[in-house]
Amino acid sequence: MENFSLIGMISIITAGLTIAIGSIGPAIGEGRAVAQALTAIAQQPDEAGTITRTLFVGLAMVESTAIYCFVVSMILIFANPFWDYTVSQAGG
Amino acid sequence: MENFSLIGMISIITAGLTIAIGSIGPAIGEGRAVAQALTAIAQQPDEAGTITRTLFVGLAMVESTAIYCFVVSMILIFANPFWDYTVSQAGG
Amino acid sequence: MENFSLIGMISIITAGLTIAIGSIGPAIGEGRAVAQALTAIAQQPDEAGTITRTLFVGLAMVESTAIYCFVVSMILIFANPFWDYTVSQAGG
Amino acid sequence: MENFSLIGMISIITAGLTIAIGSIGPAIGEGRAVAQALTAIAQQPDEAGTITRTLFVGLAMVESTAIYCFVVSMILIFANPFWDYTVSQAGG
Amino acid sequence: MENFSLIGMISIITAGLTIAIGSIGPAIGEGRAVAQALTAIAQQPDEAGTITRTLFVGLAMVESTAIYCFVVSMILIFANPFWDYTVSQAGG
Amino acid sequence: MENFSLIGMISIITAGLTIAIGSIGPAIGEGRAVAQALTAIAQQPDEAGTITRTLFVGLAMVESTAIYCFVVSMILIFANPFWDYTVSQAGG
Amino acid sequence: MENFSLIGMISIITAGLTIAIGSIGPAIGEGRAVAQALTAIAQQPDEAGTITRTLFVGLAMVESTAIYCFVVSMILIFANPFWDYTVSQAGG
Amino acid sequence: MENFSLIGMISIITAGLTIAIGSIGPAIGEGRAVAQALTAIAQQPDEAGTITRTLFVGLAMVESTAIYCFVVSMILIFANPFWDYTVSQAGG
Amino acid sequence: MENFSLIGMISIITAGLTIAIGSIGPAIGEGRAVAQALTAIAQQPDEAGTITRTLFVGLAMVESTAIYCFVVSMILIFANPFWDYTVSQAGG
Amino acid sequence: MENFSLIGMISIITAGLTIAIGSIGPAIGEGRAVAQALTAIAQQPDEAGTITRTLFVGLAMVESTAIYCFVVSMILIFANPFWDYTVSQAGG
Amino acid sequence: MENFSLIGMISIITAGLTIAIGSIGPAIGEGRAVAQALTAIAQQPDEAGTITRTLFVGLAMVESTAIYCFVVSMILIFANPFWDYTVSQAGG
Amino acid sequence: MENFSLIGMISIITAGLTIAIGSIGPAIGEGRAVAQALTAIAQQPDEAGTITRTLFVGLAMVESTAIYCFVVSMILIFANPFWDYTVSQAGG
Amino acid sequence: MENFSLIGMISIITAGLTIAIGSIGPAIGEGRAVAQALTAIAQQPDEAGTITRTLFVGLAMVESTAIYCFVVSMILIFANPFWDYTVSQAGG
Amino acid sequence: MENFSLIGMISIITAGLTIAIGSIGPAIGEGRAVAQALTAIAQQPDEAGTITRTLFVGLAMVESTAIYCFVVSMILIFANPFWDYTVSQAGG
Repeated sequence: MENFSLIGMISIITAGLTIAIGSIGPAIGEGRAVAQALTAIAQQPDEAGTITRTLFVGLAMVESTAIYCFVVSMILIFANPFWDYTVSQAGG
Repeated sequence: MENFSLIGMISIITAGLTIAIGSIGPAIGEGRAVAQALTAIAQQPDEAGTITRTLFVGLAMVESTAIYCFVVSMILIFANPFWDYTVSQAGG
Repeated sequence: MENFSLIGMISIITAGLTIAIGSIGPAIGEGRAVAQALTAIAQQPDEAGTITRTLFVGLAMVESTAIYCFVVSMILIFANPFWDYTVSQAGG
Repeated sequence: MENFSLIGMISIITAGLTIAIGSIGPAIGEGRAVAQALTAIAQQPDEAGTITRTLFVGLAMVESTAIYCFVVSMILIFANPFWDYTVSQAGG
Repeated sequence: MENFSLIGMISIITAGLTIAIGSIGPAIGEGRAVAQALTAIAQQPDEAGTITRTLFVGLAMVESTAIYCFVVSMILIFANPFWDYTVSQAGG
Repeated sequence: MENFSLIGMISIITAGLTIAIGSIGPAIGEGRAVAQALTAIAQQPDEAGTITRTLFVGLAMVESTAIYCFVVSMILIFANPFWDYTVSQAGG
Repeated sequence: MENFSLIGMISIITAGLTIAIGSIGPAIGEGRAVAQALTAIAQQPDEAGTITRTLFVGLAMVESTAIYCFVVSMILIFANPFWDYTVSQAGG
Repeated sequence: MENFSLIGMISIITAGLTIAIGSIGPAIGEGRAVAQALTAIAQQPDEAGTITRTLFVGLAMVESTAIYCFVVSMILIFANPFWDYTVSQAGG
Repeated sequence: MENFSLIGMISIITAGLTIAIGSIGPAIGEGRAVAQALTAIAQQPDEAGTITRTLFVGLAMVESTAIYCFVVSMILIFANPFWDYTVSQAGG
Repeated sequence: MENFSLIGMISIITAGLTIAIGSIGPAIGEGRAVAQALTAIAQQPDEAGTITRTLFVGLAMVESTAIYCFVVSMILIFANPFWDYTVSQAGG
Repeated sequence: MENFSLIGMISIITAGLTIAIGSIGPAIGEGRAVAQALTAIAQQPDEAGTITRTLFVGLAMVESTAIYCFVVSMILIFANPFWDYTVSQAGG
Repeated sequence: MENFSLIGMISIITAGLTIAIGSIGPAIGEGRAVAQALTAIAQQPDEAGTITRTLFVGLAMVESTAIYCFVVSMILIFANPFWDYTVSQAGG
Repeated sequence: MENFSLIGMISIITAGLTIAIGSIGPAIGEGRAVAQALTAIAQQPDEAGTITRTLFVGLAMVESTAIYCFVVSMILIFANPFWDYTVSQAGG
Repeated sequence: MENFSLIGMISIITAGLTIAIGSIGPAIGEGRAVAQALTAIAQQPDEAGTITRTLFVGLAMVESTAIYCFVVSMILIFANPFWDYTVSQAGG
């Protein structure tokens, strides 16, 4: 019965740390991009449209790295092939 | 009876660390964005509306990474599939 | 009797570290936002109202990440499902 | 008799570290806000009232994160539910 | 039965850490590039097209390093040759 | 006899580290505030009164986080409830 | 049967960490280069061609260090001489 | 005889580290305040009196955090209640 | 049979870490050089030839430190004298 | 005979580390103050007297934290109450 | 047979880490020098010859520290006196 | 015979680390002071005498912290009271 | 036979780390000096001779610290008194 | 025979680390001083003599901290009193 317990513990730790560590970079990167966008709008109000559009495309790309982490985290909690196999073994 | 105890301890630690570490990035990123927004408003008061709107959209995206962490943290405490399985095993 | 003791120790450590680590980011982020707000007011006193309003909305969002940590910390001390289960087991 | 001793040691360490680590962020954040307030007053003496008021509201919010840590620290020393339970068990 | 369990745990940890650590650099790098792009557009609105185009090519290259990490992470979870071999051994 | 010895050692370490770590943030924060106050006085000598007053209120708030640490440190050395209980147990 | 299991675990960890750590430097370096390129284009739109060309050659050289890491990572997963030898030994 | 030896060792380590770590922050903070004071005097020689007075009050507050550490350090070496109790126990 | 297994594991770890750690410095250094080159071209378009030439010679020298790491990494995987000797011993 | 040996070792390590760590802050803080003093003299040669006097008072206060460390270090080597007690016990 | 195996493992690790760590400093230092050279050429095109010559002499000196590391790394792999002695002992 | 051996080893490590760590701060602090002195001389050549004199007094105070470390290091190697006592015990 | 093996391993590790760590500081320091030299030449081409001469003397002094490390590293590999003594003991 | 072997290993490690760590500070500090000297010469060529002289005195003082480390390192390798005593004991 030990195998699935160990796999479970490891999955919990990894799921949590993946999204915790993985949110540091995107949060700081996005904060920086947003901050600069506001400066840019203040400096060139007539280009607010172009700036906002470029900002959102950029934020989407930065957010994508956070989403990779979230996806891996969710896979480890709800669709973990190693856990499925070990549980099926324990039940077999 | 050891299995569920270990899973429980690991879940507690991970839930706490996930939201603790995961709040550093967004807090700093949002602080930066807010700070720059205030500078921008002071510099171009006429654009306060556009700036505030862009700021809130940006803050929402930064906050989203903190919310990913909070969601994982709550899942680990209140809807933890590994804990449910282990408890059901221990009770079986 | 060991199980509840271990769960208890882990809950104490995690509750403390969660709020301790989780208060670093928001405190620095808020300090930065407040500092910039004062500069902005000094630079554009006529916009003090708009600046203060935007500041408070921003501070509320930054504070929210600290509150997530505080909530998790309080849950671990006063409404910990793992502790409840283990104590009920030990008493059973 | 070991259980309450371990819980006690862990509570002491956590109480100390929580307030120690938790005072770094607020102290630096407040120092920054105060420093910027003085610059702002020097730059715009006529707005000293508005600046000081905004500063104190801001300081209160930053201080709040330090107070969360202090509250958790005091709970762990003087109103620790895990300690109470363990001592009651040891005395039972 | 221990072999596949160990390989599984290691794969989980590595998959999570690879994408978590690997998302820090690209997120910060992209945030910087986007931030500078907005400054550039504000400074030279007439070149918005060239700037945006160069930005997207650059973001694609930065994103590529995040994708390398995601690819390795997915290979470790869903197409792991070491796991396949060990499971086939355990089943043989 | 081991219990009170362990509690004692842990109290000594924690008391020392709490005030040591807890003095870093306030010292740097206060140094920054004082430094900026002097610049502000040099820049606007006529406002020396307002600046000094705001500085002292600000320093008091920053110092408060150091005092939280000192209080916890003194409680752990001279009014430690865990030590009192353990010694009373050992003497019982 | 232990040898190939250990070699496998080590290969998994190293493959993941190599590309994870190895993507930090290039991502930050490229982000910086792209950011500066956009500033340069905004400053000297007439030289956009030369700047873009130099940027891409530079990005290629920076990317090369990420590719070294990816190559080593892929070799460790799919063409690992140590694994091949150990498996052939285990099968012999 | 082991108890007082352990308490003694821990007291020595903690006394040293408390003042060592605790002197980093104040030294850097005071250095910064002094440095800025000199700039302020050079910039506004007529206010040298006010600046010097404010500097000394500020230095006293920063120094206070170093003195907290020194006090704790001295208490641990010369008036350590845990050591006194343990020695009295050993002699009893 | 243990000797070659240990040498193999160590070679894998070292090969991966050597190129991973060794790519951080060059990638950042090259990114900086490229970024400055673009600024220089924007500032002095007439010297684009000289600047590009100097840049490529410089990049080559920076790249050389990355190549030293790659060479050591490849030697450790494909031409490792310690592995060859240990395997020949094991086979002898 | 082990007790005094352990106390001795711990005293040596702590004495060294106390002054080593404790000299980092003051040295950097003093270097900064001296550097700024020279700038101030160059900027306002007529105030060289006031600047030098303020500098020396400031340096004395910064140096005081280094001296606290040196005092603790010397106490631990030449007037260590724990060592004296342990040696007297060993000789008793 | 253990001795030469241990010496071998240690040599592999040290050879890799020496060049990996040793390439960080030179790569960053050279990148900085090259970046500044390009700025200098852009600022003073007429001195391109003198600047380039000084740059190359400087790069050679910086590179020399990387080469020290590479030399030590190669000595440890191909001309290791400790390995030679241990192997000759093992073969004797 | 173990006692003096342990004391010896600890003294060697501590003597080395004390001066190694203790030289970082002073070296950086002095480098900064010297660098600023040269700027000051270039800016105000007529005050070269005052500047140089203040510099040397300042350097002497910074150097004093390095000398504290060197003194402790020499005491630990050549006049170590703990070593003398232990050797005399071993010889007794 | 263990003694010389241990001394050998320690010598290998220390030789590698000494030059690896010891090359970081000089490489960065020299890179900075060279970078500034080029700026200085660009700013004052007529003083190129004096600047280059001062640069080379300075580089020689910085390089000297790298050479200290290289010397110690070479002594540890090729003229290690501890190794010589241990081998002579082992052979005796 | 173990005693001298342990003392030897410790001496080797400490000798290497002392000079390796101890060269970081001086190298960076000297690099900074040299860099500033070149700026100063470029800015005030007529004072090249005074600047160079002050630079060399300053470099000598910074170098002195590196030399303290080198001296301790050499003492530990060639004139180590602990090693001499232990060897004489072993030979006695």
